[in-house]
Amino acid sequence: MPQVRIHNFSISVDGFGTGELLSAEAPFGHAGRRLHEWMFATQFGHQLFGREGGSLDVDNSFAVATNDGIGVEIMGAGKFGPPGWQDDPTWQGWWGPNPPFHTPVVVYTQHEAEPIVMEGGTTFHFVQGSPTDVLARATELAGGLDIRLGGGVTTVRTFLAADLVDYAHIVQVPIWLGRGESLWQGLEGLEDRYVVTSTPSPSGVTHLTLERRS
Amino acid sequence: MPQVRIHNFSISVDGFGTGELLSAEAPFGHAGRRLHEWMFATQFGHQLFGREGGSLDVDNSFAVATNDGIGVEIMGAGKFGPPGWQDDPTWQGWWGPNPPFHTPVVVYTQHEAEPIVMEGGTTFHFVQGSPTDVLARATELAGGLDIRLGGGVTTVRTFLAADLVDYAHIVQVPIWLGRGESLWQGLEGLEDRYVVTSTPSPSGVTHLTLERRS
Repeated sequence: MPQVRIHNFSISVDGFGTGELLSAEAPFGHAGRRLHEWMFATQFGHQLFGREGGSLDVDNSFAVATNDGIGVEIMGAGKFGPPGWQDDPTWQGWWGPNPPFHTPVVVYTQHEAEPIVMEGGTTFHFVQGSPTDVLARATELAGGLDIRLGGGVTTVRTFLAADLVDYAHIVQVPIWLGRGESLWQGLEGLEDRYVVTSTPSPSGVTHLTLERRS
Repeated sequence: MPQVRIHNFSISVDGFGTGELLSAEAPFGHAGRRLHEWMFATQFGHQLFGREGGSLDVDNSFAVATNDGIGVEIMGAGKFGPPGWQDDPTWQGWWGPNPPFHTPVVVYTQHEAEPIVMEGGTTFHFVQGSPTDVLARATELAGGLDIRLGGGVTTVRTFLAADLVDYAHIVQVPIWLGRGESLWQGLEGLEDRYVVTSTPSPSGVTHLTLERRS
């Protein structure tokens, strides 16, 4: 069975996956780049921007797993664009003409639009309905491979609450954002459904994994 | 200079230091014993209850540090008793005739009462005022030794917000309480004031330390 997987999802110690005051200039609001600097420092992060080098440490080992056997990504409206992107017919995501997904991407939104075919294998499909509806559409597009749940915070929280996630890799970054979108709100008792591991990195972040109990 | 230290302060992954529905029968509400089972399993935890045995692992190493060089404890009204203890003139804390503190204890409360002298060196002093006032009184009682900030959640959060804490050992337990009293609420930017470390234990908990930047 295809798995629904979350990778490289970064939160502050106080549980915020993004800050406040999101905009086109500040996709993570007042969090800036701080939630993801651990990833930019890795070889994986360097390659995302076509650069050489980068660390080959435990952070990189976790980071690269995000693409293994993935056939589709599901992302929420809040990951696809800044508030109001639905009113801009030229908006095609943050990632330029050749987005780093290279698979179909299901954008979970109440906004109806035709698919957008990008370079490099990425096509954005705009899908309405319940999380289960969205997952069914993603499964059709995945070609038997796994499904990455890419964020944002609300989408991840919604799918965890609906018990539609098989694996989650959450990166706890040693900062306190104080405000923003909280990942864990309302998710009581995840330990009943998941085996949890915790791995600290010399970089200062702590990798949490949640694997569905068999 | 005496240091203000927090030790063995346990929170869920979602940041709750206690659950909901606190009572005399359930001091941590719906959290039950789950936040502190890691400590009960250690030799330190066994000795608290006069028992032999217990683990000598990293959890124990962290746990025992709570008493090193401590001259006084500050605790909030919510640690001293269940809601309404102020109306019970016979209430002398949760811990029986010989509490495990063996030092003066400053109970931070708006309730005025005479000190209560217990067996074994523990005396409860009831102190009103601001956090700074409470700390001044504790410092007088500490005899030059350090000051343990013992909780509960609101007291720890208040002292962290007032920048009165030198060291904090926080134990993140792999459970999601979903509701209760949140430790981190409103504490933006602690990383500016503290060096943070993260140490996972084979028991499943993760020890966080916050040490004031020099």
